Amino acid sequence: MDIKQTLEEQLALLCASLAATAVERDRRGGHAAAERALLRDSGLLTLAVPAKFGGQGERWPVILRAIRRIAAVDSSMAHLFAFQHLQVASLSFFGSEAQQQEWLTRTVRERWFWGNANNPADKRVTAVEFDEGLVLNGVKSFCSGAVGADVLLVSAHLECGRLIAATVPTDREGLQIQGDWNAIGQRQTDSGNVVFEDVLVKPEEVLNPGPGSSAWASLRSTLSQSMLVNIYLGIAEGAHQAARDHTRQWRRPWVLSNVEQATQDPYLLEKFGEFWVQLKAAEALAEQAAQQIEAAWQRGEALTAEERGAASVAVATAKVVAARAALDIGSRLFEVAGTSSLHAPLGHDRFWRNARTHTLHDPIEYKLRDLGNWALNDVLPPPSAYT
Amino acid sequence: MDIKQTLEEQLALLCASLAATAVERDRRGGHAAAERALLRDSGLLTLAVPAKFGGQGERWPVILRAIRRIAAVDSSMAHLFAFQHLQVASLSFFGSEAQQQEWLTRTVRERWFWGNANNPADKRVTAVEFDEGLVLNGVKSFCSGAVGADVLLVSAHLECGRLIAATVPTDREGLQIQGDWNAIGQRQTDSGNVVFEDVLVKPEEVLNPGPGSSAWASLRSTLSQSMLVNIYLGIAEGAHQAARDHTRQWRRPWVLSNVEQATQDPYLLEKFGEFWVQLKAAEALAEQAAQQIEAAWQRGEALTAEERGAASVAVATAKVVAARAALDIGSRLFEVAGTSSLHAPLGHDRFWRNARTHTLHDPIEYKLRDLGNWALNDVLPPPSAYT
Amino acid sequence: MDIKQTLEEQLALLCASLAATAVERDRRGGHAAAERALLRDSGLLTLAVPAKFGGQGERWPVILRAIRRIAAVDSSMAHLFAFQHLQVASLSFFGSEAQQQEWLTRTVRERWFWGNANNPADKRVTAVEFDEGLVLNGVKSFCSGAVGADVLLVSAHLECGRLIAATVPTDREGLQIQGDWNAIGQRQTDSGNVVFEDVLVKPEEVLNPGPGSSAWASLRSTLSQSMLVNIYLGIAEGAHQAARDHTRQWRRPWVLSNVEQATQDPYLLEKFGEFWVQLKAAEALAEQAAQQIEAAWQRGEALTAEERGAASVAVATAKVVAARAALDIGSRLFEVAGTSSLHAPLGHDRFWRNARTHTLHDPIEYKLRDLGNWALNDVLPPPSAYT
Amino acid sequence: MDIKQTLEEQLALLCASLAATAVERDRRGGHAAAERALLRDSGLLTLAVPAKFGGQGERWPVILRAIRRIAAVDSSMAHLFAFQHLQVASLSFFGSEAQQQEWLTRTVRERWFWGNANNPADKRVTAVEFDEGLVLNGVKSFCSGAVGADVLLVSAHLECGRLIAATVPTDREGLQIQGDWNAIGQRQTDSGNVVFEDVLVKPEEVLNPGPGSSAWASLRSTLSQSMLVNIYLGIAEGAHQAARDHTRQWRRPWVLSNVEQATQDPYLLEKFGEFWVQLKAAEALAEQAAQQIEAAWQRGEALTAEERGAASVAVATAKVVAARAALDIGSRLFEVAGTSSLHAPLGHDRFWRNARTHTLHDPIEYKLRDLGNWALNDVLPPPSAYT
Repeated sequence: MDIKQTLEEQLALLCASLAATAVERDRRGGHAAAERALLRDSGLLTLAVPAKFGGQGERWPVILRAIRRIAAVDSSMAHLFAFQHLQVASLSFFGSEAQQQEWLTRTVRERWFWGNANNPADKRVTAVEFDEGLVLNGVKSFCSGAVGADVLLVSAHLECGRLIAATVPTDREGLQIQGDWNAIGQRQTDSGNVVFEDVLVKPEEVLNPGPGSSAWASLRSTLSQSMLVNIYLGIAEGAHQAARDHTRQWRRPWVLSNVEQATQDPYLLEKFGEFWVQLKAAEALAEQAAQQIEAAWQRGEALTAEERGAASVAVATAKVVAARAALDIGSRLFEVAGTSSLHAPLGHDRFWRNARTHTLHDPIEYKLRDLGNWALNDVLPPPSAYT
Repeated sequence: MDIKQTLEEQLALLCASLAATAVERDRRGGHAAAERALLRDSGLLTLAVPAKFGGQGERWPVILRAIRRIAAVDSSMAHLFAFQHLQVASLSFFGSEAQQQEWLTRTVRERWFWGNANNPADKRVTAVEFDEGLVLNGVKSFCSGAVGADVLLVSAHLECGRLIAATVPTDREGLQIQGDWNAIGQRQTDSGNVVFEDVLVKPEEVLNPGPGSSAWASLRSTLSQSMLVNIYLGIAEGAHQAARDHTRQWRRPWVLSNVEQATQDPYLLEKFGEFWVQLKAAEALAEQAAQQIEAAWQRGEALTAEERGAASVAVATAKVVAARAALDIGSRLFEVAGTSSLHAPLGHDRFWRNARTHTLHDPIEYKLRDLGNWALNDVLPPPSAYT
Repeated sequence: MDIKQTLEEQLALLCASLAATAVERDRRGGHAAAERALLRDSGLLTLAVPAKFGGQGERWPVILRAIRRIAAVDSSMAHLFAFQHLQVASLSFFGSEAQQQEWLTRTVRERWFWGNANNPADKRVTAVEFDEGLVLNGVKSFCSGAVGADVLLVSAHLECGRLIAATVPTDREGLQIQGDWNAIGQRQTDSGNVVFEDVLVKPEEVLNPGPGSSAWASLRSTLSQSMLVNIYLGIAEGAHQAARDHTRQWRRPWVLSNVEQATQDPYLLEKFGEFWVQLKAAEALAEQAAQQIEAAWQRGEALTAEERGAASVAVATAKVVAARAALDIGSRLFEVAGTSSLHAPLGHDRFWRNARTHTLHDPIEYKLRDLGNWALNDVLPPPSAYT
Repeated sequence: MDIKQTLEEQLALLCASLAATAVERDRRGGHAAAERALLRDSGLLTLAVPAKFGGQGERWPVILRAIRRIAAVDSSMAHLFAFQHLQVASLSFFGSEAQQQEWLTRTVRERWFWGNANNPADKRVTAVEFDEGLVLNGVKSFCSGAVGADVLLVSAHLECGRLIAATVPTDREGLQIQGDWNAIGQRQTDSGNVVFEDVLVKPEEVLNPGPGSSAWASLRSTLSQSMLVNIYLGIAEGAHQAARDHTRQWRRPWVLSNVEQATQDPYLLEKFGEFWVQLKAAEALAEQAAQQIEAAWQRGEALTAEERGAASVAVATAKVVAARAALDIGSRLFEVAGTSSLHAPLGHDRFWRNARTHTLHDPIEYKLRDLGNWALNDVLPPPSAYT
C-alpha cells in the first residue's frame, strides 16, 4: 500500500481510536456520534473533493485502500466513510459545474458529512415537478449515514418513471430521518428509513443529468461497488488478524493432535493457508479494479460504455472473491482460534455478522451471471444501480 | 420420525413453549430457569432411565429424534436435555448395579436434572484418594447444565494420571458453580466453570469401572457424539425452516432477476435444493447412526471393541455432514431470505452462532482423519472422549 | 447389502470377469460382444421380469444394488445391465397385459437383450399413423445398448406432438443401428445413433398408454433416474477402491511430510475421510430412494401423483450426492494415490471419465432447482423424462 | 499481456502450429520430434540466455507469459519449453562465470534443447568423486524433455548425502534415455526414466555451488514453481476457451430450462462466471509472482533469504489458485458445453488429464501448509526443491 505518509499517519490514528471501542459499539449498535466526529476531525472526509474546490483530490486507489483499512477495524465506520466519498463523487457524475462548485466548496468549508437516501431498489419516493422545483413524498429504506448527516443525496421517481437525483439538506422541512436501523451486522451505519412529507427541492438542488444518463453517470454505480469490494476485503483482513492474534495467544493443541503447539497443527496451518490465498486473490483483484476505476474517472465525460463496462467487470470479479473471503474467514476464524474465541465479550463474531449483512447488498450470483455473460457472450454488464 | 404419539404430543407442546421465547432468551443469555422447569415438568427427563428404575427406558433413536426436534427451536435447551440423558446413561456405563439403583431411582423420584462437570480436555481437577473417598480440587470448564442441576457427573484425575468419574450433588460443600458462561452461541447452556475446593466424594459416589475402562464404558463418548449429531441436525432444520418461512413471506424478487416472484428465482431455488440435499444426507446418516447406537447399547457389557468402533464410525460420518449442514444453512439462510431477514430482533443469526459454537466441541478435521484411517487403513477410531 | 446368496455368487463371478478386462476395454471402446454374452449367460437379465412371466421378479433395491456392484468394476456394462431392466419394466408401465405377456415371456425364453432408442431430448424421429400401425423416420441419438440388442424400446413423436413408444425388433427393415459411439467415457455402452427409414411398427408393438400418461407411466423416468444413481455410486465406490489399493501399495510419503508412511499423512487421511463421508451419504440416500421406488412399484396403477413425486424427490436427492461423489473421488483419487497412479495402462482416469460422461445425462443444477421448488414451494417435481 | 510485438508474432505462429495437431498428439503420446523442431526453429529457446552470451535476455514475466500462452494450446510442449529456460537459468544459479560462458554460448550457437534429469524426490542416482570428475550410477525418474535433448541438467547424491548438479551431454557413454513415459496426461513431455551406468562427468561439468547452497541457488526452485503456475494457468485458459467455443457453437438449451438459447441459461452463465473469477484471480496472482521472480532475479547473488522467501510465498499463492482453476475448469467444461462435447475425437478431456497429471508434481496441501506457516507464524517457506 502506497498511501502517502501523512495520510498513513492520519489513518493509523483514526483506526486505533475506532478499534478501541469497535466491539462495544457493535454490541450497542445505534448512532456513533463520537466516531463520526472523529471522521470529521480527521480531515479525511474531503479526500475525494477535487483540489479546485478545496479538497485533496486524492486518487481512487488511495481512497479505496483507506476504506479497506478502516473496514478492518470497524466496517460500519468504513461504510459511512466510503459513502461520503461516493456522494461527493456523485456531484461530478450528476451535477453541473456550478453545482459542483456550490456543493463541494461548501462540503470543505462547512465540513459536511453526506448521507445517502438513494436506495434504487426501493421505489416508494415520488417526485412531482412544479415551477419552483420538486416535491418529494414517500419512504426510502437503507439510507446509510442519513442520521447525523448535513446533506443527503436523494433519489426519487418522477411520474413518467424517470429516476432523478437531488441534494437535500437534512434540516429541510418535511424530512424525517428515522434512526431505526437495527440489523445483525454493520450495526452503526445508520441505514434506516427516511420519510419525505411534501419535501421541497429547489431547482438548483436537482442534479442533472442524473443517474444512468451516460456511461459517465453510470460510473457512479461502479465506483459504489468498488467501495463495497474494499469494505468486504477489509472485513476479511480484520477477521484474519483476529484469527491470527487469538490463535497465537490462546489456542491450545487439540488433545488428539500429537503436536506440541497448536500453531504447528497441520490442519490449522492448512486453514491459515486457505485464508491467505483468499486474501491475496481478493487483494490483487481489488487493486486491479481500483486502477481501472481511476482510469475511468480520469476519462470524465469522454468515458465510453465499453470503458465503463470493462471497469464494471473488474470490480464485479473482485467483489465475488472479496465477499467470499470475508464470509469464509469471518466464519472459520473460530475453527482456528478455538473454543476460547467464542467468549462473547471478544466480539469475534462481528466479522461474520458484518460480512453477512453487507454482502446482501446485491446477490453474488447475479454478479456471476453478469461475468458469465461477459465471458461467454462478450456482453458487458449493462449499466444499473448494481454494476 | 416414529416417535410415539404421546411423546410426540409432549414434544410438540414443549417445542411450542420454547420457540415462543427462544429469540429473546438467545439475546439475553444466562440461565433459563423457567425453561428448565418446563423440561422437568414435561416428564421427558427420565426417557433414558430404564423401566426397572422407574423411567421410560426409551430407545435411543427415539430420544435422539426428540433432541433433534428440540434443537430445531432451541439448541441450548436441546443440549441440556441431551446431556441429562447422557449422564443418566453414564450410570449404566460406569456404575455398579447398586449405584444404578440408587441414582436412577432417585433421578425419577426426585425429578433430578443432571449437570456435567466432565470436560476431558480440561485436566485441572485433581482427585486425592483417602479412606473415606476422594477429595477434589481445581477448576473444570465447559460444565454444561451445571447451574440449576441437582447432581453433577464429575471427572477428575488421580495423581497416577488415571481418569475417574463420580456423581456429586450440587449442594456438596466446597462446590462453586459459576454462572459465567457467555459465548456467542448456545447462550443458555450454562456451560461455565465449576470450582472444587476440598470437595469430598463418598466411596459410593465414585463410579466404577470409569471412563475408557472397556468397550462398553467407551460407548459413552460415542453416545455423546451422537447427541451432538442430532443437535447439529436440529439447528440445520431450524435454520431451513426459518429460511423457508421468511423467504415465502418477505423476499421480493431481485431487481435484475426477471422473475415475478422471488420464490421462482433460479438461483434461490438452487440454494434451497442445496439445503435440502444436505438435510436429507445428514438425516439419513443420523438415523443410521442412531440404529447402531441402539444396537450397541443392547449389547451391554458384551459389546466388543469392533462393535463400538463401528458405531463410532457411523456417528462420526453423520457428525461431519450434520455439522456442515448446520453451518452452511445457518449462514446462507440470509442469501435466500434477503435483506429483511437481517433485522436483529428476528434473531435469524442465532442458528449460525449456535452451530458455530457447538461445532467447536471437537474439530471436524480430526473426525475426517479418523474416518480416513478407517477407510484407508482399516483402523477403527480408538476409544477417546471424542470418538 | 442383502442381495441373496446365489445372486451374490453370480454377481461376484460376473464382476470378477468384467474387472479382468475393464481397463483394456475402456481403452479400446466399441462393442463388448463377449461381455454382453457374459451378461446374457449370467441369467441376470431377467431379474426384473415378473415371476408370472418366467422371470425372477426381484425387488428393485436388490436389482439396483446389483447395478451398483457392476458399476464399481465396469460402469459401461452396468449401464447396459440397468437399461435391460428399465426396458423390461417399461412393458409394465406402458404395455397392456397382453403385451406384457408377449414380450416378457419372449424376453425370458429367447434370452433377449433389450436396447434403448428412446432419448426424449432428441425429437427427430417422427411417427405417422396408418391403419396397419406406424411408420417411423428420422434419427435417434444416445441409443444405449442398441448395438447387439434383440429388440429396442423406441419413442417417436406423432404429428400432433404426442410422444409414443413401441417395441421394435432390431432386425426390422429400415432400421440401421450405427455403432458410432465414441465418447471420452462410458465407452462400451453402444450409445450411438439409430436411423429409421420407413420403419413399420405393428399395432401390437405400439405401447399403450405410453410415456407420461399417468403417474404410473411417469414412474419409468423415476426408475431410470434411480438406476443412474446406482451407476454413479458404483463408479464412486470403484474409484475409492482403486484409490485405497494404489495408495496402500505404492504411495510413498511426501518428502516434506515428516511421516514415515504415506498412509499416516494427515492430509491424505483427511481426503480419505472426505471420500468416506461422501460414499456413506450417497449410499444411505440411494438405499432410501430404492425403498421408495419399490414401494411405488408395488402400488402399480394405483400410484398417485404425490406418491410418484415423493419417490422422485428421494431419487433426485440421492442423484445429486452420488454424482458429486463419483466426480470428486474419480478426480481426487490421484491426489491420494500419487504420481505412480498416473501411469496410463492402469486406467485410473476411467472413473472420472465415466462419471463425467454419465453425469451429463441431465444437469445436476436442474435437479437442485426441482428439489428447491419442493423444499421452498411444496411443488413436487413434475413428471418428465428426467424426474 | 505486453509481450513484444515480434515475440508476439512468433508465439502466435508457434501456437497455431501446435494447436493444429495437439489433440491427435495427445492421443498418440510419445515423443513429439516435429514439434520440438518447431520450438528450436522458433528461436525462442534462447529467450532466457543473457544477451552477453548471445541470447535475448528476456524478462521473466515475458517468458512466463509465453509459457502460459503455449500451455493454453499444448501443455506438454509448454512444459518442455519452460524447462529449457529453467535449465538455462540453472547455469546462472549454480554455475561459475566460465561455465555460464561455455554452456550458454553453446546453447545459442548449437541451438541446444536442454533436458531434465533432476527429480529431487528420486534419490537413486549416486555420484562418486574421483580426480577426473564424477561417476554416476542409478536411475532417475520424471526426466522431462530428456528424449531428444542435447544436454541434460543432472542431479545426484554424493556418498556424504550432498546433492550436486552437473551438465551432461546426452551422447555421453553409459547414459540411456528411456522413452518410457506413458501417463494419462502431459503425454508428450518425455518424462521417462534416465539410466546412468558408470557415466563420467568432467570436472568442468560439475556445477558449483549447486542446489540449495545459497538463497540465490535456491531461487531455482522458486523459478521452477513459477513455471508450473503458468502451465496450470495456461491449461485453465485453454479449457475455458474450449468451453466457450463449444458452448457457443453446439450447446442446445436444456429441455426443462425455459430459455431459448443455451447461452442464456442462468446456471450456465453462473458457471462461466465462476470460471472467469478463477481465471482472473489466478492471472492476477501469477503476474504478481512473476514480478517478484524478476525482482529476485535482478538481485543476483545478493539475494537474501527473506527476499527469496517472499518470492516463494507469492509463487505458492498463485500456484494454489492456478492449479485449482485448471482442475475445475478442465472438469466442468463438460457441464457447460454439454453432451456433444464428450465426443472423444474432440479431446476435450485433455485439459483435465493434463492438469490432473501436472498438479501432482507436488501436493497443494503442503503449499497451503507453507502459506499457513507464513500467515500464522511469520515463517517463510524454507528452501527446498519445491518452494
